[in-house]
Amino acid sequence: MTDALKIGIAGLGTVGSALFRAITTRHNMLADICGREIVITAVSARSRNRDRGFSLDGVNWYDDPVAMAREADIDVFVELMGGEGDPALAAATAALAAGRHVVTANKAMLARHGVELAKLAESNGVLLNFEAAVAGGIPVIKAMRESLTGNSVQRIYGILNGTCNYILTRMQRDNLGFAECLAEAQRLGYAEADPAFDIEGNDTAHKLSILTSLAFGTQIAADEVYVEGITNISIDDIHAADELGYRIKLLGVALKTGTGIEQRVHPTMVPKGSMIAQVEGVTNAVTIEADILGELMLSGPGAGGDATASAVLGDVADIAKSRPGHQHAPALGRPAAKLEPYQRAQIQSHEGGYFISLKVDDRAGVFASIATKMADNGISLESIVQRARPGGAADGPQTVILVTHATTESKVRSAVGAIKGEGYLSGEPQVIRIERTREG
Amino acid sequence: MTDALKIGIAGLGTVGSALFRAITTRHNMLADICGREIVITAVSARSRNRDRGFSLDGVNWYDDPVAMAREADIDVFVELMGGEGDPALAAATAALAAGRHVVTANKAMLARHGVELAKLAESNGVLLNFEAAVAGGIPVIKAMRESLTGNSVQRIYGILNGTCNYILTRMQRDNLGFAECLAEAQRLGYAEADPAFDIEGNDTAHKLSILTSLAFGTQIAADEVYVEGITNISIDDIHAADELGYRIKLLGVALKTGTGIEQRVHPTMVPKGSMIAQVEGVTNAVTIEADILGELMLSGPGAGGDATASAVLGDVADIAKSRPGHQHAPALGRPAAKLEPYQRAQIQSHEGGYFISLKVDDRAGVFASIATKMADNGISLESIVQRARPGGAADGPQTVILVTHATTESKVRSAVGAIKGEGYLSGEPQVIRIERTREG
Repeated sequence: MTDALKIGIAGLGTVGSALFRAITTRHNMLADICGREIVITAVSARSRNRDRGFSLDGVNWYDDPVAMAREADIDVFVELMGGEGDPALAAATAALAAGRHVVTANKAMLARHGVELAKLAESNGVLLNFEAAVAGGIPVIKAMRESLTGNSVQRIYGILNGTCNYILTRMQRDNLGFAECLAEAQRLGYAEADPAFDIEGNDTAHKLSILTSLAFGTQIAADEVYVEGITNISIDDIHAADELGYRIKLLGVALKTGTGIEQRVHPTMVPKGSMIAQVEGVTNAVTIEADILGELMLSGPGAGGDATASAVLGDVADIAKSRPGHQHAPALGRPAAKLEPYQRAQIQSHEGGYFISLKVDDRAGVFASIATKMADNGISLESIVQRARPGGAADGPQTVILVTHATTESKVRSAVGAIKGEGYLSGEPQVIRIERTREG
Repeated sequence: MTDALKIGIAGLGTVGSALFRAITTRHNMLADICGREIVITAVSARSRNRDRGFSLDGVNWYDDPVAMAREADIDVFVELMGGEGDPALAAATAALAAGRHVVTANKAMLARHGVELAKLAESNGVLLNFEAAVAGGIPVIKAMRESLTGNSVQRIYGILNGTCNYILTRMQRDNLGFAECLAEAQRLGYAEADPAFDIEGNDTAHKLSILTSLAFGTQIAADEVYVEGITNISIDDIHAADELGYRIKLLGVALKTGTGIEQRVHPTMVPKGSMIAQVEGVTNAVTIEADILGELMLSGPGAGGDATASAVLGDVADIAKSRPGHQHAPALGRPAAKLEPYQRAQIQSHEGGYFISLKVDDRAGVFASIATKMADNGISLESIVQRARPGGAADGPQTVILVTHATTESKVRSAVGAIKGEGYLSGEPQVIRIERTREG
């Protein structure tokens, strides 16, 4: 049997602890499968003495993860500290430079520094694996990087943030407001005390930027993602969507257009009967449309200590199964030097259907004005619905909902701007893009 | 750059031709990604001169695939002839024995001879890859073999035959009979001229037996699968399922029980709201329940030349990316010598809910008799529905539908046997197992 694979884990929170337990309790099973033992020889975490339910006896302790990455007797550095900058970045860099493989779940670090880390891994002949960084336990990185080799991807989209999907699902299922569902998600541990990063779409944008690179062979461009969060989705929007046959999901979408690559994160209308509409609660899902394979969908747990640890363990096992010095698996699917510059397709040129909800004063001619403004901008309507006032009130603003046929973002913005200029709206218009999906 | 990877393709039907085109037209892209060229140096097929839309100039032609496997200047033998025995088996065996990697889409051959082929691959230090053998383009083999390393699988189930799913979907959606839908599937090329292998469940059983081995680390036991096909599913069954909130799918299911491993292929009731119920037409889907990861679902095209070729190409690319002589990736997820004997859990001890449809003569006391027989066998009922006679007829047999709470196969068989003995049934009872699934 080959020598044991020695790993060092930096970060012993939920994921790190789950990984520690999995590797130690399944030692023999892993050795049988991988043809060599996997042994944890070093760890680094914030507190040495916290009770994690397992013993660190016999494992070298490092207060400084960067020192561990550089000096410890390890073959693989597992980075589970998180955060886009140091110490995670410094540690990962030190490990790769010292010729150690790196496994990480750190999407923020990869979104910012993924290409340079990939280059460093290549030039040192080691692997950079990060299955857990996108969609938790779902093996989407492996599918993109390995299974789809040779395919050209046309579009990739998914539900990449469990917090947002939990909130939207709960609102829809139980007729609750956004704030109430967010508070509940926080109580259940599905949302952070400061939830902004999740609910404003930035977490999804980080993950999407990594998928975009793998899908299209381009450099990671996390700052070039168009991002809208779910904070202004109301229960009224969800009801209106339901009546029209849609569910609202926070999707990350990347696709090739005539002018470049669109990367968008925003609340999205998807048909109720589509597979992606069935993905509820904290579950994640990714759909990939590729020219040889066709359409592939993966769904599963997008977060949680165990599910994420499972993905990390798969990455570690892949290294254990390969033999040192003989890997050729570029981190981002092709050699970093072969990644194309990312060419952004502007959101203004996005094409698709739109859901537009307008609160209007009940004046003669308002309907005609709205219809005219849409027509003036060359937008054709699939449906237009005037909703009764809440509680059957005799006056006050009414809601008018438009669903457009495929058009462009710039036309919609122009039409909505013109409607706003007429002075009969109360409140901001709600505009939600409709994503074309395969019917379930 | 490393030397080119030389491959030989045996079988130039739909899949082989799609693979040939993909490798030749994407030569540069593949070389960039894999760090070496992939070159087709040899082919073997039934007819040398058939017009396939591409030229075989410069490629060595072999009439005999076994000779090609043994003698051609190739690193990888791609077996796309099909059939469980020779020449596919002789050729794959010859290739492995000669130290060539083998990639195959041949589920029948693997179901029968997978363990011996895996042993031969190991002892010769080469790879045996077969992503395309199960669920076409869906990367379920890679997910099981690599991503889930370290997990214990509790259950795996899926829609593994596109022909059956097409027929059941069409019956349900368009209110058509089985024979009509089968004829249509044949017209559309979704079903073979002799469809028995598909519709009687044997194709699903082959694929399931391979998944079972990967899931539970056991030897492949294709003859130990309990199999029922879809030929006796009527439109009445589909209507009744719909009324009760179910869809009927042909599932392959493998799970661990107290007495061993159940492998079953049969028409199955799944709740309408479940993800698997949304999988329609020729699409396949697999759900894996694993102890660390949780529940993972993959869905996509289960057949078709391009989708299957995509999976074969992924397997070839994996070999191209690795370096000769340094792979350690046992074909069945662990070394063949470590595979446990398969221990069959008998279908009689299967536990679950049941849908039972009985055509009964309208006699006093029939309802009471049915309820008594169920109670006598310790079966509790979730619902019992008596359906009106077709067309409102005043007499003739009536249909009584029972849905049981979780019980065992042996109790159900005993109860149904007792009911048959009473003499008031017209026609055979229809018994369909209900599979527990996660709600969508």
